[in-house]
Amino acid sequence: MNKNDRITIAYIGGGSMDFGWKFFSELAAEELYATVNLYDRDKQLSLTNEVIGNKLRENPECKSDIIFLASDSPEEALKNADIVIMSISQGSLEEAVSELTLPEAYGIYQSTGEQAGPASIIRALKTLPEYIQYTELIKKYCPEAWIINLTNPMSECMQIMHHIFPEIKIFGSTNELFQTLELLGGLVELEYGISHVRRRDIKYNLIGISGFSWFDKVSYNGEDLMPLFRKYAEKYYKNGFELHQNEYKTNPLSSANKIKFDLFLRYGLIPAVPDRIAADFCPGWYLKSPSVINSWKFSQTSVNYIKKINIDRSGRVKPLMSGTEFLKVGGSYDDCVLQIRALMGNGNLITNACTINSGQVANLPDGAIVSTNALISKNNVQAVAAGKLPDEIYALTIRHVINQSTVVKAVIEKDLDIAFNAFLNDPLVNTDLNSVAELYKEMLSSVRQRLIYYC
Amino acid sequence: MNKNDRITIAYIGGGSMDFGWKFFSELAAEELYATVNLYDRDKQLSLTNEVIGNKLRENPECKSDIIFLASDSPEEALKNADIVIMSISQGSLEEAVSELTLPEAYGIYQSTGEQAGPASIIRALKTLPEYIQYTELIKKYCPEAWIINLTNPMSECMQIMHHIFPEIKIFGSTNELFQTLELLGGLVELEYGISHVRRRDIKYNLIGISGFSWFDKVSYNGEDLMPLFRKYAEKYYKNGFELHQNEYKTNPLSSANKIKFDLFLRYGLIPAVPDRIAADFCPGWYLKSPSVINSWKFSQTSVNYIKKINIDRSGRVKPLMSGTEFLKVGGSYDDCVLQIRALMGNGNLITNACTINSGQVANLPDGAIVSTNALISKNNVQAVAAGKLPDEIYALTIRHVINQSTVVKAVIEKDLDIAFNAFLNDPLVNTDLNSVAELYKEMLSSVRQRLIYYC
Amino acid sequence: MNKNDRITIAYIGGGSMDFGWKFFSELAAEELYATVNLYDRDKQLSLTNEVIGNKLRENPECKSDIIFLASDSPEEALKNADIVIMSISQGSLEEAVSELTLPEAYGIYQSTGEQAGPASIIRALKTLPEYIQYTELIKKYCPEAWIINLTNPMSECMQIMHHIFPEIKIFGSTNELFQTLELLGGLVELEYGISHVRRRDIKYNLIGISGFSWFDKVSYNGEDLMPLFRKYAEKYYKNGFELHQNEYKTNPLSSANKIKFDLFLRYGLIPAVPDRIAADFCPGWYLKSPSVINSWKFSQTSVNYIKKINIDRSGRVKPLMSGTEFLKVGGSYDDCVLQIRALMGNGNLITNACTINSGQVANLPDGAIVSTNALISKNNVQAVAAGKLPDEIYALTIRHVINQSTVVKAVIEKDLDIAFNAFLNDPLVNTDLNSVAELYKEMLSSVRQRLIYYC
Amino acid sequence: MNKNDRITIAYIGGGSMDFGWKFFSELAAEELYATVNLYDRDKQLSLTNEVIGNKLRENPECKSDIIFLASDSPEEALKNADIVIMSISQGSLEEAVSELTLPEAYGIYQSTGEQAGPASIIRALKTLPEYIQYTELIKKYCPEAWIINLTNPMSECMQIMHHIFPEIKIFGSTNELFQTLELLGGLVELEYGISHVRRRDIKYNLIGISGFSWFDKVSYNGEDLMPLFRKYAEKYYKNGFELHQNEYKTNPLSSANKIKFDLFLRYGLIPAVPDRIAADFCPGWYLKSPSVINSWKFSQTSVNYIKKINIDRSGRVKPLMSGTEFLKVGGSYDDCVLQIRALMGNGNLITNACTINSGQVANLPDGAIVSTNALISKNNVQAVAAGKLPDEIYALTIRHVINQSTVVKAVIEKDLDIAFNAFLNDPLVNTDLNSVAELYKEMLSSVRQRLIYYC
Repeated sequence: MNKNDRITIAYIGGGSMDFGWKFFSELAAEELYATVNLYDRDKQLSLTNEVIGNKLRENPECKSDIIFLASDSPEEALKNADIVIMSISQGSLEEAVSELTLPEAYGIYQSTGEQAGPASIIRALKTLPEYIQYTELIKKYCPEAWIINLTNPMSECMQIMHHIFPEIKIFGSTNELFQTLELLGGLVELEYGISHVRRRDIKYNLIGISGFSWFDKVSYNGEDLMPLFRKYAEKYYKNGFELHQNEYKTNPLSSANKIKFDLFLRYGLIPAVPDRIAADFCPGWYLKSPSVINSWKFSQTSVNYIKKINIDRSGRVKPLMSGTEFLKVGGSYDDCVLQIRALMGNGNLITNACTINSGQVANLPDGAIVSTNALISKNNVQAVAAGKLPDEIYALTIRHVINQSTVVKAVIEKDLDIAFNAFLNDPLVNTDLNSVAELYKEMLSSVRQRLIYYC
Repeated sequence: MNKNDRITIAYIGGGSMDFGWKFFSELAAEELYATVNLYDRDKQLSLTNEVIGNKLRENPECKSDIIFLASDSPEEALKNADIVIMSISQGSLEEAVSELTLPEAYGIYQSTGEQAGPASIIRALKTLPEYIQYTELIKKYCPEAWIINLTNPMSECMQIMHHIFPEIKIFGSTNELFQTLELLGGLVELEYGISHVRRRDIKYNLIGISGFSWFDKVSYNGEDLMPLFRKYAEKYYKNGFELHQNEYKTNPLSSANKIKFDLFLRYGLIPAVPDRIAADFCPGWYLKSPSVINSWKFSQTSVNYIKKINIDRSGRVKPLMSGTEFLKVGGSYDDCVLQIRALMGNGNLITNACTINSGQVANLPDGAIVSTNALISKNNVQAVAAGKLPDEIYALTIRHVINQSTVVKAVIEKDLDIAFNAFLNDPLVNTDLNSVAELYKEMLSSVRQRLIYYC
Repeated sequence: MNKNDRITIAYIGGGSMDFGWKFFSELAAEELYATVNLYDRDKQLSLTNEVIGNKLRENPECKSDIIFLASDSPEEALKNADIVIMSISQGSLEEAVSELTLPEAYGIYQSTGEQAGPASIIRALKTLPEYIQYTELIKKYCPEAWIINLTNPMSECMQIMHHIFPEIKIFGSTNELFQTLELLGGLVELEYGISHVRRRDIKYNLIGISGFSWFDKVSYNGEDLMPLFRKYAEKYYKNGFELHQNEYKTNPLSSANKIKFDLFLRYGLIPAVPDRIAADFCPGWYLKSPSVINSWKFSQTSVNYIKKINIDRSGRVKPLMSGTEFLKVGGSYDDCVLQIRALMGNGNLITNACTINSGQVANLPDGAIVSTNALISKNNVQAVAAGKLPDEIYALTIRHVINQSTVVKAVIEKDLDIAFNAFLNDPLVNTDLNSVAELYKEMLSSVRQRLIYYC
Repeated sequence: MNKNDRITIAYIGGGSMDFGWKFFSELAAEELYATVNLYDRDKQLSLTNEVIGNKLRENPECKSDIIFLASDSPEEALKNADIVIMSISQGSLEEAVSELTLPEAYGIYQSTGEQAGPASIIRALKTLPEYIQYTELIKKYCPEAWIINLTNPMSECMQIMHHIFPEIKIFGSTNELFQTLELLGGLVELEYGISHVRRRDIKYNLIGISGFSWFDKVSYNGEDLMPLFRKYAEKYYKNGFELHQNEYKTNPLSSANKIKFDLFLRYGLIPAVPDRIAADFCPGWYLKSPSVINSWKFSQTSVNYIKKINIDRSGRVKPLMSGTEFLKVGGSYDDCVLQIRALMGNGNLITNACTINSGQVANLPDGAIVSTNALISKNNVQAVAAGKLPDEIYALTIRHVINQSTVVKAVIEKDLDIAFNAFLNDPLVNTDLNSVAELYKEMLSSVRQRLIYYC
């Protein structure tokens, strides 16, 4: 590799202490020559990350040669970019809290509210106007760049970008299937006495939409893992099963996999998302009330947990800036850097990706954002033909696909009444019509200042 | 017309005092030479109706020449029939009561439970095995006959018949759109000072499924009625509107049309079914609780009302048998006899009908039972190409279409677990999974003796 | 009927001595109050027809009250029209001759060249620019009018109108299925000893595209006529069969039905067009050479025949203008006036019509112009759901559907190279590529002055 | 790799001196432990190949450890196979000659007649009955094996196997796109002064059907090659272009790429097959007559050429059996051995493959055999979502897809009349119907003894 091949990565939302730091760690673990332009609405955060990122070069394990630069404007960040990372937050902690808790007064409980549920619609309404602006800048300043989207709601964000700039080169990157892969890997280890089964060794066919995708084929070393999963599902349907017992009690991102087992036994496909994400896409089956949630052994996103994490991270800022602590090299969860390298020509990568549908999920409409395997190679991303969703999973899925289009249409037409239809049809929103209308008004009103686009 | 053209009508469920008597009245009002074979599981009822029907000939207004004969077996009734009326009841009053009330303990309220809602699934599970038997007899004894189905759940009943005998000549006859047509007629009278606007003078395009169909075009004398309907919908959205004020308070089959207005304002199409039927197809928007139902100004099917009607009817049996009272001639609500006459060659009839989809509703799957206009002529029924459902109505509808297929599949495979999936996905069934499972078990258990087919 | 209901019919191409006179005859046969605005590029012709039409009122059998007025401009003709008849010729006799004969030098024989074959493409290229202008005037001067198109190529003409004015109310009227209906009627008479079987008494399901449509169900008085047709097809496959023996030898519009029999025996559906029209849509099966044409017992459009007809008609002009001869009242072949009356509210009419596809032919693409039954009622035209074309007929048909779209695209983009692709893919155009290119150039060049739109 | 991993490859048609010897060469070039069971209808040929194959082990460059065994029966060969190679010849040289030359008397010239054209239909009729037998044996003796089909007509062969054994694991392997890749590689070398551009370095999206597939995206090292191809196509459209000048004059498998250029300039996609194969799929554009063929600078399959090759090969048998000559190690054209290794778990392979469609070509019907990229990994083959064919290429393609289904249906129903419909609809078969019928009879009669299955 030649130093002249230095590429430019624009990172929109580059002040992040969460995905941002993980991304820096991954960048450091690969042979890569790049300039990373960090843009964040909060300039201070991107300046901080510039320092932290550049300090990482002093970590002796660092293999890459990356220069981090905080940008003053998105224009500056995007100009001539080869790769654009889109990973922006959707508002303050206070907003997140109200989006999750306001519906609870109406008996509507959400798990994450990120890609389904009433909170996800409010998020989309806040985020998409901003996305319109970024997309127009991309079209102007780096139309040939590859865009990797990580922001939720994934489908709505990607659809609006396609709408504004139909020729955009884009895919969505997500790690939401890794938890199921790790579970499968763990089962292989337990059952066959093999150790160190890596996530990458599990082969699968992925089919569905972001947040609600499935494995309809899964194997390890050529051996079908469906029977193995069935064995555990049947045995542990009642009580759940964890690789690390009772982890779900302390780690709100974890679960006892009861929802996976339940969905699998009912539909025959393995959910390729964490229980808490799948729950948001279903009717109130798993989220009817706090006690129901508890009985399914998973957790809602907890405000206290978020606060605690934020405090932990803030505490690391000074050490990381001063170099008394380094970000680690590698070890992250995401495949984002591998995807960038494949796009740059480092061999073929078969990975999961969200892409705009044109047959890869044969019974979802063209233009939907779908989640399948994809083949990433130099300047090319191509979805694998994943086949069809079974009828009953299709019925659960098509509602969300249409709801997502409705939300995007509402944003394009600047019409919050259109978005109300999506709100009303969300499977978790199951109360009488007048109550729903009231809740919608309250939720909009709580983020009023973020919705001037619609006035 | 020639007396030699006497046709044979087999009436399965012919002991009915409800549709049966109305049907006899209609038969009497047209020039028709026919033998009507009455078959009923309860032989006594068909014998009674034989007498009542034959007495009708003594009514001086009677125009037809019909002989009613109670049959000992369905075989006897069906042999060489030209027309088969399928209109059977789905169990005792007690069963109907439990199907409507058991779910209420779980916070699930139904309006009629006839074509959607948990009760409709239990009904299908009870009714379809019987339908399989009848269809096999039709295939054997009158394969060329036209079958007119009136039994609910309409879609499931028709699908199983198609499954057993794919060449069957069949359509579903329903009057559920007449209420909306009468409302529209009433608006025309009010607005334009015209009197006696008949239902048949309203022209429309009908699109949807049985129980959840819509007008996307409607006119009177060439004039578009959509703006007129919009005017009333907007004006009376809050308080409702009735042609006969406050009728909804005393007549549980009536309503103040608030649901029609609400659905119209949201989706732009006019619901072609009574409010109470539409409510069953939606999430809990209108049926969340008794007070919500009340605020939408319609009623659930009331057990006392049914009882009262049954008592009224029973009281008429003796007078009708002895000839001290006659059934009236004509004046009924249904188009069934007109449809029979058109099939026999009395000119073309354009009417609504339920048919198996092969493009008439372009975005519902082939094989679904759909509700559109149809052209009935001699030995021919042909649906009109109704176009596409708008996306958001499609999203509400496709759930039911898939649920109906699931129920039919469950019956074919004799597997009540498959039917549970449909139960679980019914939009009104919105509680946690374990409660749903419990409710399903209870409901099945309450009709245990009717489900031996599945053992 | 009230004289105040006088309607305005704009007749574009109103100088015609062919369809024009027939249309006048039909108008005279029905109770109708109308003003007919005649517009023709050749003003003299429309002035002549004004006189001839108005003279018809003096025919004592005339039932209508029609005023014919020659218009100076299409604007004048179209202003406030209720109905627009589009029936324009596509050029001089000389042009027609060259369009049919030029390809013969390349071994390409056409039967009519009106809707398929190289001549039809040249016709479309000449006609569609004019259609664009008329459509813009319709949009401006009578956007609520119903347009009845008779001009060929039917599909291309209708598609361009839809393209320019998507809300246009339009259907295509054609009599091309009447010949098959008359044949069927004749067979019924012969076989069952019934006399006077009228075309309207044959019931059918029509499916296909203009010029290449089929009956997949056909009955008389409820009796399936397919077996009867099969009997004749099998018996007369070799030698052909005519109701009037050897008519085909003198009447070039007639045939011995050998092509109908051949297509029926191969595909199982009855061609609903004359042999000579069907032949144009197939590969060279029936049109490979003059002797092949001869052996199939039908004729190409003959220049001498056209000339003779034109001379006959011209000879009648004076007598008709002076009133020494009247056009007859009624007796025409077309249903156009019945269609107009149905649109005006005189009851429902079930008739064949060309409409833009939205499911009525379930396996042809949306937006294609298809030929099916339709229901015409007051201010409404609705196609009947005709089902699917069988696979092998689909394969023959889809080529034309795509070719038609290509031609329309060529006109929209003013690009004669695009149209060459359609030319090249026409089934009759089967020679080597360079010869086809040469032929295309020659044909374009022969109508050069009509193609300035593309410069 | 472990010697215990020895796999079993059944090679049906294993007596081949053509693909057989190339396959042996490839096997020798990879680290592979395998037993190859050679079955051939002509036992002598498989015995010869057993000796030649086993001698190859003495070639010092040989890397694999393969034992070749001639099998007495297909059962013996297939028993417990991991991989089955299907590569059978379709009859004698004499048959091949007559299949190509008989139609010439009717003015129908074919290039190869292997996958389209009248000869291909006769081949299918001969080959598919044999394929039915093999498939039943596969189902019985090695249902878990992966089948790699190389026999033409590819689509028909694969469809019948799917029909007989729907769960079959199968894909089609073809090298027909390599010639276009080499041309593209050569252009890169010429234009950019790079040397040794390997076929594998060209990245592409492949879409279409076997024998008629296309590149709609193609790049080298991330650079789009479409503009480069356009440059050559425009420059050399008239005279053609070859990497090795005038090779086409001596090598009948070669061409001056004029057809590729012509199709590309008309449709915008690069044909991914040799000119001579593409020509067979089009109407007579390039095959109208010997002089037309000549002017397009390609050749029909030449009988003399085949004879010469056969003589050359026969001459090598003795030296190869005695070990005075060895088959070379590697250097072959096909990817078959790489595909086998990938199936066995040696990493992911992205390669072209023919697979049964379920969305990978979004506008071809499910169940068609399509040609796209695919991802081969351990015990898994998955097509890449290739998108849609452009309308005009779709129109050329769908005819063949339907024709292929018709042929397969004819075989299933043992009905040669059904196959005649496919024959009649072949784009090259463009003469009058009676001549086509006569030709069909002649061709069937010339291979009468191979068609007893249909009696």
